Amino acid sequence: MPLAATPPSHILLIRCPDEPGLVFKITGVLFHHGLNILRNGEFVERADNCFFMRTEFAGPLQAEALLHDLRAALPAAADIRLSDNRPKNIVLMATKEHHCLSELLVRHAFGELNARILGVISNYPVLGELTRQFGLPFHYITHEGKSREAHEAEVLDVLAGYQPEFVVLAKYMRILSSGFVAHYANRLVNIHHSFLPAFVGASPYAQAYARGVKIIGATAHFVNDQLDQGPIIAQSVIPIDHTQSASEMAQAGRDVEKIVLARSLQLVFAEQVFVHHNKTIIFD
Amino acid sequence: MPLAATPPSHILLIRCPDEPGLVFKITGVLFHHGLNILRNGEFVERADNCFFMRTEFAGPLQAEALLHDLRAALPAAADIRLSDNRPKNIVLMATKEHHCLSELLVRHAFGELNARILGVISNYPVLGELTRQFGLPFHYITHEGKSREAHEAEVLDVLAGYQPEFVVLAKYMRILSSGFVAHYANRLVNIHHSFLPAFVGASPYAQAYARGVKIIGATAHFVNDQLDQGPIIAQSVIPIDHTQSASEMAQAGRDVEKIVLARSLQLVFAEQVFVHHNKTIIFD
Amino acid sequence: MPLAATPPSHILLIRCPDEPGLVFKITGVLFHHGLNILRNGEFVERADNCFFMRTEFAGPLQAEALLHDLRAALPAAADIRLSDNRPKNIVLMATKEHHCLSELLVRHAFGELNARILGVISNYPVLGELTRQFGLPFHYITHEGKSREAHEAEVLDVLAGYQPEFVVLAKYMRILSSGFVAHYANRLVNIHHSFLPAFVGASPYAQAYARGVKIIGATAHFVNDQLDQGPIIAQSVIPIDHTQSASEMAQAGRDVEKIVLARSLQLVFAEQVFVHHNKTIIFD
Amino acid sequence: MPLAATPPSHILLIRCPDEPGLVFKITGVLFHHGLNILRNGEFVERADNCFFMRTEFAGPLQAEALLHDLRAALPAAADIRLSDNRPKNIVLMATKEHHCLSELLVRHAFGELNARILGVISNYPVLGELTRQFGLPFHYITHEGKSREAHEAEVLDVLAGYQPEFVVLAKYMRILSSGFVAHYANRLVNIHHSFLPAFVGASPYAQAYARGVKIIGATAHFVNDQLDQGPIIAQSVIPIDHTQSASEMAQAGRDVEKIVLARSLQLVFAEQVFVHHNKTIIFD
Repeated sequence: MPLAATPPSHILLIRCPDEPGLVFKITGVLFHHGLNILRNGEFVERADNCFFMRTEFAGPLQAEALLHDLRAALPAAADIRLSDNRPKNIVLMATKEHHCLSELLVRHAFGELNARILGVISNYPVLGELTRQFGLPFHYITHEGKSREAHEAEVLDVLAGYQPEFVVLAKYMRILSSGFVAHYANRLVNIHHSFLPAFVGASPYAQAYARGVKIIGATAHFVNDQLDQGPIIAQSVIPIDHTQSASEMAQAGRDVEKIVLARSLQLVFAEQVFVHHNKTIIFD
Repeated sequence: MPLAATPPSHILLIRCPDEPGLVFKITGVLFHHGLNILRNGEFVERADNCFFMRTEFAGPLQAEALLHDLRAALPAAADIRLSDNRPKNIVLMATKEHHCLSELLVRHAFGELNARILGVISNYPVLGELTRQFGLPFHYITHEGKSREAHEAEVLDVLAGYQPEFVVLAKYMRILSSGFVAHYANRLVNIHHSFLPAFVGASPYAQAYARGVKIIGATAHFVNDQLDQGPIIAQSVIPIDHTQSASEMAQAGRDVEKIVLARSLQLVFAEQVFVHHNKTIIFD
Repeated sequence: MPLAATPPSHILLIRCPDEPGLVFKITGVLFHHGLNILRNGEFVERADNCFFMRTEFAGPLQAEALLHDLRAALPAAADIRLSDNRPKNIVLMATKEHHCLSELLVRHAFGELNARILGVISNYPVLGELTRQFGLPFHYITHEGKSREAHEAEVLDVLAGYQPEFVVLAKYMRILSSGFVAHYANRLVNIHHSFLPAFVGASPYAQAYARGVKIIGATAHFVNDQLDQGPIIAQSVIPIDHTQSASEMAQAGRDVEKIVLARSLQLVFAEQVFVHHNKTIIFD
Repeated sequence: MPLAATPPSHILLIRCPDEPGLVFKITGVLFHHGLNILRNGEFVERADNCFFMRTEFAGPLQAEALLHDLRAALPAAADIRLSDNRPKNIVLMATKEHHCLSELLVRHAFGELNARILGVISNYPVLGELTRQFGLPFHYITHEGKSREAHEAEVLDVLAGYQPEFVVLAKYMRILSSGFVAHYANRLVNIHHSFLPAFVGASPYAQAYARGVKIIGATAHFVNDQLDQGPIIAQSVIPIDHTQSASEMAQAGRDVEKIVLARSLQLVFAEQVFVHHNKTIIFD
């Protein structure tokens, strides 16, 4: 399974109350460590005076010493994290629809996902053949006849065996409990059909047809306690019209969903996304 | 005030329970009247078996006889309407924001609106100068110190003097009563900032910023009893990101709103739009 | 290999010099045959007075008699064709890039393509594993050490064995001779990275990066004698910026290409597309 | 004429051969001057190892001293510029089409342009009434019966009287000589209808109709020696189809053109755009 060859680089992620001189102090530490900045981005959220910085750099990394010096240079409240651009370890969860799962399996097979898919979990067996066709383990964990807690416990158990860095809900159509979500805070990505205006409940495309909307879309977001309300990572839309049946709208919706999900993962796996309250700060 | 020269043509609009042979019967009547079809569209709404047809035609129109023959050929429940592509008579209503009003005034001045603006009504005086600059009457009708009924009665009075075919709410920021709306059923067009996800209440752009949405948009729709829920005529969106402040988002939103409103009016004034329940059927 | 269950319907495709009464005459024939129109579209190209009509209908089809009656009712120059919405038989051709091929293989596997893929032909072996993984025959026909004519003759030979209704160039990166194209006139669909402004020659994404374009896109088109200049079926774009490297642009470009190609095939296989001179007339 | 109230801030623009420590050195100078960074962006063009930085900052500016210290800290080849976010002084040039001119006049009248329009120059008289309606001077300078040099000399003469920081070609339909362009290098913005595929020569919309394109668009760019080939600032597109006549496409094209031009000016006037060779680097 070839993974895209990207030159190795380190990524520094800092979140900190804003104050004068932060960029100067941070880049000073990097400079004195002989590290060369490849790409840099900063943003200050004025609403609560919060500073964000993402720095890709190359050079002789001494992680311990670097973090020590950054901590010494920055306010005590600073949140400092060191990462890199190696492929992330992930697990996918799906239900019956194949489009997001197959999109990710294909990208993975050709080294375009910047991640290693460790396995796929589903509450139905139908996507097992597709998954195995790509040489990956498929875990069918039915929810039938089980309480939500019991079912989630089984899923968590499988996940624990993989220790994934991210869990991707590739059209996993069951609501997850707060307890489950808490295990993967800011590491659980979902794709949601979201319309303009948004439709809730069953059969969103039937509703969209009945309402005569002219645009449909999709939203990739981190999952939090509030259903479909977590921080948005990426959104996209396509125009439609009254001549398209609900099933044609659904096909168009699937096309948008899978591309938006794939793009959001590209951003997340490259450590370009900060979650701040209920929004995202995304660096180029 | 020059209006775009379009070759004169007639437009036949038919809505009818679907049954075999409708197109044959309708086109037969036109053929026997010596009328030549220039553009034709049909659509059947399967959900309730409703047939729609819009026909642009040229030739020696004898309206009475044509309608008589169509009524004889079609089921009794058929709704048959004859119109044309001459400019519609309209009145605009606005509050304080200029962008939709100025867009329509400019298009009108250069003959691109396919309508005659008879006058502008506002509950604030600020847009009076702009309106008069384009040589049009401006009616300032404050709502302050008046009941909704009393204020609307004044507005209806001014409208009655103009007998407009359509009333366009070009960022008119007051909710209209059911009684008011009933006077202009399917003839009252509104533009609404609608987001993905939709935000209600005050300061939508501040909410959009706080929520970190990646797309903002606008919806032009007919007004009905349910606030911002009438049949959608046109929608459009643009991508944004976290670096744009709420006021930059608002500027981008205004750009989308005015173009979407203008496009929806182009469709409505050319008689391309049927309203059916809470949706629109729009012919090319 | 399940194919999407669509109710069986017939499709009538007519192209004819325009004259008064055509719709009346055509629908009259259908009515007298007891056939019920499900969806109908007409268009007149004013530039050369050419009438197009596409009619989906249901009922007791007697093809011979219907065509006979239509020929009797219409001008001698009328081009009348009867088709249906059953899945088309197709062959795919590719080179080394997987994204379009895998998109079509996945849709095919889940019955979303409205076509039966009979086989895949490539001038390189790299996509063989993917193709076989989906249970389909893969024909590796190298072009090395062969004249264009000799290579194309081998490809045509394999195609002849399949008798496909359409051949889809899913990133087939060799120019086809006029002779080859003539075998599949209006039945050969290609996907082309086309930029705004368009870039020709090698490394289009490197050129796009160097030029700092803000939008990239793709065009699906029928192939004709002029390279990349055949009738356009579908186009789409996505916004980009200077921070994206040429390889990131290429990934974005691939995402657009595969979705545009899939959408164009949906239109073509459902018989929604007329080719007229160097353009397409596409019915809803 | 009210102009949007924006808190005053300073903008530092640096272009320099890349080397380690640049951000550290630049932010160090700002820090020691007691200046607080509000928004910061950097980019390195790997192709020629060129570093770009744009910094918005607030605080007690001592321009001379700041520039002196920056020059001392940076390589001799550094290009250092100090600007701010006050409205720019501009002159507009137009021919006969009103849509871009009226868009800018309206935004200007409501303080949304971040610029002061000093005057409008046209080679036709038709837009004079519109311009004067907004209280601005209109210079009608016909090109008839004059050599290009003579005509341009007259235009340059009027421009010289205004000393504009930028000249905006709001559908000015004459080719400018290299000599003219040289007077306003990187300060001359044009809007160009550019299609996918691009059409050159007269009647681009007639060509687009004949070719059956599915998308039309527009490009705002700086003007350089090569006609319509200068650095791209902004681009946008809208979908169209075969049912739209060339004149309907033209209206859609005008809508795109005016919004793209306005957005590009927003970026340029806020000093967000660096020109580098034939591309732009645009900071948030």
